[in-house]
Amino acid sequence: MRLLLVNANTSRSITDTLAAEARLSLPADWQLSTATGAFGAAVIQTRRDCAIAEHACIEAVEANLAEHAEGCDAVVVGVSLDTGLWALRETLKVPVVGLLEASLLTACMVGGRYGLVVVGPQTVPLYRELVERHGLAARLAGIEAIAADAPAVQAAPEQFELSLVEACNRLVEGGAECVILVGAVVAGLHRRLQARVSVPLLDGMACAVTQACGLARLPLFRAEADGARLT
Amino acid sequence: MRLLLVNANTSRSITDTLAAEARLSLPADWQLSTATGAFGAAVIQTRRDCAIAEHACIEAVEANLAEHAEGCDAVVVGVSLDTGLWALRETLKVPVVGLLEASLLTACMVGGRYGLVVVGPQTVPLYRELVERHGLAARLAGIEAIAADAPAVQAAPEQFELSLVEACNRLVEGGAECVILVGAVVAGLHRRLQARVSVPLLDGMACAVTQACGLARLPLFRAEADGARLT
Amino acid sequence: MRLLLVNANTSRSITDTLAAEARLSLPADWQLSTATGAFGAAVIQTRRDCAIAEHACIEAVEANLAEHAEGCDAVVVGVSLDTGLWALRETLKVPVVGLLEASLLTACMVGGRYGLVVVGPQTVPLYRELVERHGLAARLAGIEAIAADAPAVQAAPEQFELSLVEACNRLVEGGAECVILVGAVVAGLHRRLQARVSVPLLDGMACAVTQACGLARLPLFRAEADGARLT
Amino acid sequence: MRLLLVNANTSRSITDTLAAEARLSLPADWQLSTATGAFGAAVIQTRRDCAIAEHACIEAVEANLAEHAEGCDAVVVGVSLDTGLWALRETLKVPVVGLLEASLLTACMVGGRYGLVVVGPQTVPLYRELVERHGLAARLAGIEAIAADAPAVQAAPEQFELSLVEACNRLVEGGAECVILVGAVVAGLHRRLQARVSVPLLDGMACAVTQACGLARLPLFRAEADGARLT
Amino acid sequence: MRLLLVNANTSRSITDTLAAEARLSLPADWQLSTATGAFGAAVIQTRRDCAIAEHACIEAVEANLAEHAEGCDAVVVGVSLDTGLWALRETLKVPVVGLLEASLLTACMVGGRYGLVVVGPQTVPLYRELVERHGLAARLAGIEAIAADAPAVQAAPEQFELSLVEACNRLVEGGAECVILVGAVVAGLHRRLQARVSVPLLDGMACAVTQACGLARLPLFRAEADGARLT
Amino acid sequence: MRLLLVNANTSRSITDTLAAEARLSLPADWQLSTATGAFGAAVIQTRRDCAIAEHACIEAVEANLAEHAEGCDAVVVGVSLDTGLWALRETLKVPVVGLLEASLLTACMVGGRYGLVVVGPQTVPLYRELVERHGLAARLAGIEAIAADAPAVQAAPEQFELSLVEACNRLVEGGAECVILVGAVVAGLHRRLQARVSVPLLDGMACAVTQACGLARLPLFRAEADGARLT
Repeated sequence: MRLLLVNANTSRSITDTLAAEARLSLPADWQLSTATGAFGAAVIQTRRDCAIAEHACIEAVEANLAEHAEGCDAVVVGVSLDTGLWALRETLKVPVVGLLEASLLTACMVGGRYGLVVVGPQTVPLYRELVERHGLAARLAGIEAIAADAPAVQAAPEQFELSLVEACNRLVEGGAECVILVGAVVAGLHRRLQARVSVPLLDGMACAVTQACGLARLPLFRAEADGARLT
Repeated sequence: MRLLLVNANTSRSITDTLAAEARLSLPADWQLSTATGAFGAAVIQTRRDCAIAEHACIEAVEANLAEHAEGCDAVVVGVSLDTGLWALRETLKVPVVGLLEASLLTACMVGGRYGLVVVGPQTVPLYRELVERHGLAARLAGIEAIAADAPAVQAAPEQFELSLVEACNRLVEGGAECVILVGAVVAGLHRRLQARVSVPLLDGMACAVTQACGLARLPLFRAEADGARLT
Repeated sequence: MRLLLVNANTSRSITDTLAAEARLSLPADWQLSTATGAFGAAVIQTRRDCAIAEHACIEAVEANLAEHAEGCDAVVVGVSLDTGLWALRETLKVPVVGLLEASLLTACMVGGRYGLVVVGPQTVPLYRELVERHGLAARLAGIEAIAADAPAVQAAPEQFELSLVEACNRLVEGGAECVILVGAVVAGLHRRLQARVSVPLLDGMACAVTQACGLARLPLFRAEADGARLT
Repeated sequence: MRLLLVNANTSRSITDTLAAEARLSLPADWQLSTATGAFGAAVIQTRRDCAIAEHACIEAVEANLAEHAEGCDAVVVGVSLDTGLWALRETLKVPVVGLLEASLLTACMVGGRYGLVVVGPQTVPLYRELVERHGLAARLAGIEAIAADAPAVQAAPEQFELSLVEACNRLVEGGAECVILVGAVVAGLHRRLQARVSVPLLDGMACAVTQACGLARLPLFRAEADGARLT
Repeated sequence: MRLLLVNANTSRSITDTLAAEARLSLPADWQLSTATGAFGAAVIQTRRDCAIAEHACIEAVEANLAEHAEGCDAVVVGVSLDTGLWALRETLKVPVVGLLEASLLTACMVGGRYGLVVVGPQTVPLYRELVERHGLAARLAGIEAIAADAPAVQAAPEQFELSLVEACNRLVEGGAECVILVGAVVAGLHRRLQARVSVPLLDGMACAVTQACGLARLPLFRAEADGARLT
Repeated sequence: MRLLLVNANTSRSITDTLAAEARLSLPADWQLSTATGAFGAAVIQTRRDCAIAEHACIEAVEANLAEHAEGCDAVVVGVSLDTGLWALRETLKVPVVGLLEASLLTACMVGGRYGLVVVGPQTVPLYRELVERHGLAARLAGIEAIAADAPAVQAAPEQFELSLVEACNRLVEGGAECVILVGAVVAGLHRRLQARVSVPLLDGMACAVTQACGLARLPLFRAEADGARLT
């Protein structure tokens, strides 16, 4: 079976980072393909970036499917803002899962209220609106933002990790029973930081790959091969 | 890996039915164990039944774990009212998933608003409250109840299936973009009825087994073996 | 008329404390009976304790009613987590009232938004969920938790009372127009502490006894004697 | 002890009707006084009527208290729209309870979701807004309106009662587990109609008198005599 | 065209202040009339004041219309608590707009979440309830209260302005993307303070005059001249 | 002053229809410019269409501004799905208003709850989500969908208008106190149909042009010329 991971921004190095994380969660009988946005921002930071990336994301998926006659069995939208998620879900007959969506739903099964740690204070309203759009705001304990960009992270990685841990702990203080680390720049850090936080840390890619491959096994998607699903 | 399926009521024949459904969704490298409530109602129909079954459910799981030194890797609470879910989740270090919870969260990824078809009008308030307790009422398109009991279903199965299809279609009319069939008495019927309903039908057991086995692969649960998770 | 006060945990000394408080609010023409859980935790502290106590609570009430041919006229569930409330309400034809429920509803008539002071930070999510389950979260100004257990309270009662007063005042600062003191360990303290807090303090037992005895006077419950009520 | 019942509209015959109902729920050790609005509409039907009646209600209470040196121990606002409730509560140191408020809170303890039957379709938005203002909309199953005025009711009382019963049953069909009959024109009818409806019927005056006299017994209000309450 | 500005309290100097602000936003082809409450408080500070002012507001508008045969084309209720708004809207066939309402709706079009700065901590619950009554609480980032009265403001205007700026900045810190300055005492200060706050400041009168005169141009109100609107 | 009306789809004839409607509401001292999407669907009907149109909308506005050195004073997004609204608002320093947004906010000032009539049942979930995204779902009485496409409308315009009137009246029956006619295909019909509906009909373009030109007069936008606004 084939999982298509689409990165809606134009940075192939981010695509590679995401793919490496995705492979850590991929079931043994699945293969991973990737697609990268052909236009728009290298890193999505604003609503305008996000709107354009939505178009790029749709085109990247459609181009990939046009190339591969056998199609794919599930799609993961590899952007924390779930860019293009609803449009792809409407269009395709296989499961389509977003990083934030998958981690929010997984958090619901871990228990209680969840918190988000995001990088870049300007993205807080975007994530808050996205949580509301998913209809899951009732269980949101809070959002903490770290002010840091990629160069700052590279220059002082320990300081950055300390900031993340402190943000997690503020959320725990405020009632979060698990914390989601959001964004490509924190991909994989949940493994390093878990020991310093007293509640489970969730990673979007691990959740999304697990959900997408799991959904693809459900009858409603498996039946697609026989043309049974009408949507 | 081992999945423990617990039936909170005392009917072993229901346990067997549920187990048969569960096996259809079980990944190849998993084994299934079952546990059945030792006291309480044979079929949970009221809030009082449900309260007592919660105790029976906890004891059944704890007895099973006491018998199996190797423990289990995930638990599915095999009752549509998610009986005992929160207490078990607090107690155990492996994923615990409920039938209704898993189907609601899966419905969120299938898209839009979802509807429920339940058997027994007296259970409607219980399910409505449960949806609210899961924090997912914002996407509930409606609940349709079928007035039927097990003997009536056996006496006229085609009439029962027709009622289910009509209920599904009323929900679609009201805006549901997928429908969850709720209860042991409808276990497996989603496969027979999908062709007569224009939106995806979801089955609690298929969703719950998929979610439980998927969650068990996530780092936060896999790390348990090494004592990393603190909860 | 007879009020049945049920303590869902197994500690008879807590039952006695609760009964003493209940008598302070009991109308002159009422008598008080008590029942105590036969199994489960001595003090309910976790979701697992609470689930088992729910069963114990139902059995304790049913055993008491089996002993008293004349039945009772109202029931107060003497646990701040309203353990077993919904199941008993479904089963009995007399009013059943919980401590938290009664204080929340009374707070609504005192005015504005209310705050909760609870003992034990680990219970905050349980109380938050209970407020939501009662459908009264819209008027919750906040929950403050005191970290203290019964021995600590006995060792330094003045320090404990100071902590309670400070917690009340933080809630007032945050917009609470009345404060509910929650838990058996604070039973009766509202009388001592009222003078040090600028908004009304509510006590669960006073509210619950008042509500239960008042409800028993309403036509819908009085008519029970004539078999008029159908539930 | 003295209960002051204030009718915010100017019709003394409505005051008398309300007082007769109130006396049926009054505890033995209480006396009833009444006050009637000195200006405004004879029957409140619009938002403009209601706004003016709010002023009349405050003045009627203040005039009554000026006349009675001993004050009163509780106030019931005898208008289904809870006219002047919040202003009086802010001003007085005794409990103030409204008809709709008291019946909504009582409904919460009877269980599940509640429905309203109102007279006059034009009042539906006013009642819907009032339920929301009380923060209790989450449990509202629906509002049914009867198109009838006082002359029509007198001309064909059986037809009117049939309309009420049918409205109650539509609400039960839609999930209401109790029904509140709203408005002076239906005062007392709950006793006649209960036998024809399968869920409990609630009457605003019975609920309000019970709540007001119960609240007056709580420490926070009893302490008033000693000047302890600071609000 | 004529805009009627009604001040529901009895202070003519406040009416003059409000009128001066209103003229700054009035389109060139409009004239301004004012009306002042004939009874009640000089400055509305409590719920009781507000209830009486509602009556005064209705009478002041009706008296003004009785004097002016040509009527008016729009009404602005010049009180931040939107006193009398719903009653006047029900009664009149021209647009009626409140200060808080207009600034809340304008804030929705400026973007994201908004904050309120109010003068007088005791008014916070009144404004919170008003935001909820307008159905716009979902986008409320917070309410900050300044403890100051008119004499204090006059004695130390710079200190007052500093307090306002600090309150605005606390709201921005908490996620507000625009801030509404609420109350007659801050009328016009948005112009002076904008340079010291990083998000847009909104003023109730500017918003209300703009909305009222804009609404009056819409077909549904213009058609009134021909008797088309049925309400 | 110059208003820029952008049509996010690629049909210039729809742009012309919208512009004709816009001119009916344009203040005397304003000029209208238009822009049309350069790629994407001729008529937006799906989520995929909408996602691509968002990109087209941003590019069309930016291209227009690049051509006009003097910029514009306000922007109306001439698509009922408010396509690109949030991205443009983030980017530009002048007011940006969407058709649905403006009519929802106007409906709030007309009073009570509002209903929507949309063309095409498949768009109902898109509009429901958009109302929720605007935070205004609390006042939504309902959405009625007409099954018709442009050719059907042209073939039987009277039948289409009758369907619209019936849909409006169903909404009024369900509690709507005003109705918004949604979509380019019903542009201007509010004038013809108002006489057959008992509550005010609102038109998106009339509301949006009025709001955009009104907002442009407010200090926060006027100050842009002097560089005061920081966003």
